[in-house]
Amino acid sequence: MKVLDKGFVTLVDIMGDDRSAVRAARVSHGKDISTDEKDRKLINYLMEHGHLSPFEHITFTFHVKAPIFVVRQWFRHRIGMSPNEISRRYTSKNVNEFYIPDHIRIQDTKDKQSSNVYSDEQLREETLEIIEEVYKKSYEAYEKLINMGVAREMARIILPVGEYTEFYLTTNVRALMHFLDLRASSHAQWEIQQYAKALAQFFQKTCPWSYEAYLKHQYKGDILK
Amino acid sequence: MKVLDKGFVTLVDIMGDDRSAVRAARVSHGKDISTDEKDRKLINYLMEHGHLSPFEHITFTFHVKAPIFVVRQWFRHRIGMSPNEISRRYTSKNVNEFYIPDHIRIQDTKDKQSSNVYSDEQLREETLEIIEEVYKKSYEAYEKLINMGVAREMARIILPVGEYTEFYLTTNVRALMHFLDLRASSHAQWEIQQYAKALAQFFQKTCPWSYEAYLKHQYKGDILK
Amino acid sequence: MKVLDKGFVTLVDIMGDDRSAVRAARVSHGKDISTDEKDRKLINYLMEHGHLSPFEHITFTFHVKAPIFVVRQWFRHRIGMSPNEISRRYTSKNVNEFYIPDHIRIQDTKDKQSSNVYSDEQLREETLEIIEEVYKKSYEAYEKLINMGVAREMARIILPVGEYTEFYLTTNVRALMHFLDLRASSHAQWEIQQYAKALAQFFQKTCPWSYEAYLKHQYKGDILK
Amino acid sequence: MKVLDKGFVTLVDIMGDDRSAVRAARVSHGKDISTDEKDRKLINYLMEHGHLSPFEHITFTFHVKAPIFVVRQWFRHRIGMSPNEISRRYTSKNVNEFYIPDHIRIQDTKDKQSSNVYSDEQLREETLEIIEEVYKKSYEAYEKLINMGVAREMARIILPVGEYTEFYLTTNVRALMHFLDLRASSHAQWEIQQYAKALAQFFQKTCPWSYEAYLKHQYKGDILK
Repeated sequence: MKVLDKGFVTLVDIMGDDRSAVRAARVSHGKDISTDEKDRKLINYLMEHGHLSPFEHITFTFHVKAPIFVVRQWFRHRIGMSPNEISRRYTSKNVNEFYIPDHIRIQDTKDKQSSNVYSDEQLREETLEIIEEVYKKSYEAYEKLINMGVAREMARIILPVGEYTEFYLTTNVRALMHFLDLRASSHAQWEIQQYAKALAQFFQKTCPWSYEAYLKHQYKGDILK
Repeated sequence: MKVLDKGFVTLVDIMGDDRSAVRAARVSHGKDISTDEKDRKLINYLMEHGHLSPFEHITFTFHVKAPIFVVRQWFRHRIGMSPNEISRRYTSKNVNEFYIPDHIRIQDTKDKQSSNVYSDEQLREETLEIIEEVYKKSYEAYEKLINMGVAREMARIILPVGEYTEFYLTTNVRALMHFLDLRASSHAQWEIQQYAKALAQFFQKTCPWSYEAYLKHQYKGDILK
Repeated sequence: MKVLDKGFVTLVDIMGDDRSAVRAARVSHGKDISTDEKDRKLINYLMEHGHLSPFEHITFTFHVKAPIFVVRQWFRHRIGMSPNEISRRYTSKNVNEFYIPDHIRIQDTKDKQSSNVYSDEQLREETLEIIEEVYKKSYEAYEKLINMGVAREMARIILPVGEYTEFYLTTNVRALMHFLDLRASSHAQWEIQQYAKALAQFFQKTCPWSYEAYLKHQYKGDILK
Repeated sequence: MKVLDKGFVTLVDIMGDDRSAVRAARVSHGKDISTDEKDRKLINYLMEHGHLSPFEHITFTFHVKAPIFVVRQWFRHRIGMSPNEISRRYTSKNVNEFYIPDHIRIQDTKDKQSSNVYSDEQLREETLEIIEEVYKKSYEAYEKLINMGVAREMARIILPVGEYTEFYLTTNVRALMHFLDLRASSHAQWEIQQYAKALAQFFQKTCPWSYEAYLKHQYKGDILK
């Protein structure tokens, strides 16, 4: 699933589905049998009452490509998140891929945490020109340092946080919901919202009952509804 | 897989295998291609150098039945362990199942943390008689309280820690290895060692390369070799 | 602070107070200066918007004595909870202390997760008699097994979950709030509610602004207000 | 404590010392009394046998200033690490501070994960000139974008990972030891090694017995001895 201009989210592997949460919840009550209708009701009940531990039994592995500044926000989520990221100490692969925005946001002068989409085409062009110029210069300088024999781990200190990086991430539905609460939200930066939306789609496809119940009872954000 | 007199460990679900760790490790180095031989070597390298995060991408769900005192030791492992346990507040199901040892261990008088297997048949019989008598009396009293209308959550306070309980557990190979370090060890209580051995067998079957490399380079216990 | 008939919660050590959360939150905004009024407002803002990570910088160590069945519920909280508990493998100290309820709750026949306080004095006496009888028999049997030389780790399997145990717990305010959400709640078992209330008092005393803002904006339970 | 050219590590707050670990470990054994000699022995015993949970009762809060690329390595440590970092969405404070190395390392051509210190003065000067030029251009472009009204969260995408950032970190001795195992190691990048050494000094000063026992029995790195 394509995200931003050069990024993606791929679902690599999955364990479980709606019924895995049901099964784990039922053991608490010492019950086995279930029907579709009862399973769905139970999932609703769990979400409504905040019994979220059964959702730790559904796990995903994603392969993600995203700009460094997005990844830095992402990895603030520590609980139930197991990442392995490409290392710029070990490889120079694809080092010349940088995030180019397709729109420009201006600083909200009243609310310092907000930004607004920018409609002036001239300013958009000027901004992109500046950004692309810095990307170009940084990359050329990096290349030059590498060619001079400077260690990769040292040369990369000049690479901008708009550079794309890649990682594998294993997480579970409970951790994913917490991520969506904070990042599938208009308070989050627009770029990470796009990744959150992609994850939400995978969540919805694989666990439709849980996703529906989550949106209804638990979701604290505002862009998925 | 049967464990102790009435317990078990069942593998309910699994995500990934040896190659999941390889894949996650390779992203760090920006590499894709691999052969069986190289994958195996990489797993060895990771274990040897303590790069254990790639093993968080292999997850298991187990269904376990074990005595409460074993579960209490088990749940001291908090990292990467997602359990859902039967609740004695909600159900009286199977409340009359208790662990009966098949051997008796005597207290080591020098090392207070040790115990030794007991060979005197008379003492064994006496011990089992005492244990079974307490189990019987506790259970009868529990039944009586329930019949008198006392709340399950209150009646159960007299049930012994030898009572069997059940839980679903989702964990990953890294957390599993840490569990085996401490519990597949002669320092651990004999009963939890049996569960650790069962988990080790599932680990070996599903990730033979990782298991072999773990035993060679990382394993801190002494009973699996 | 005395809890239940023989238990307690003692505050052993503490790091930080309301201002520790403020300080950590301010670094995010690149600000230093603050007044009491602004600090208090900031704490309110953090709680209102669910920015809870600054509250991980306030840590407590508690010494707790509680029945095993309470501790089992308590330790289901894994995030930000570091416990060390007395081990019945290593010591027989105080093994004869058991929880005697001062009231009896009967099973709610409609809501199987609920119980109601019992007012019939005769039934109360009968119930306590049964409970105390099981405690007495179990303890005598334990003593006998120990005297016969049976290992402590084996003899203890007949001890009931109403037995008191002790532990040291280090936690932080964020984890504590999550604990209070679930355990300072009428849905939790009455006994653990008493421990939750004790923790809440320590929280209120040491971080009055955070506690007030927590109750106002975040608290999901119902018994602290 | 100054680290690198413009960074620092400051100890902001602390809870506990060597005796906190002792106290928590003793509860496991049901013991209270202790002498200095016995306490020290117990700490040695715990480290030798890998009983590390008692060291979770000693917590620190640090204030750290470090380049982004160091912080990215640092925050791969998720367990027992509670950070709050300055946000470039919210502030432009000190945005023009970048890491200038005082030595240059060249790529090891055999071991792709290694680098060697560079002794050729001419190449050093050329390298620093290139790095400083990129820093200068990036910062000027950032300033220009900000002056044009572009949102901070968008303008910062061109800032290099050599930029300094700040964070508050609360951690405990167990998590700190794990950090030192991997980062106070010649396998880690030289820059993060300097931060690891600073943390090690704070550890040594506040918990001299634990630090000594850690180096003797647990430490997996090679630069602290």
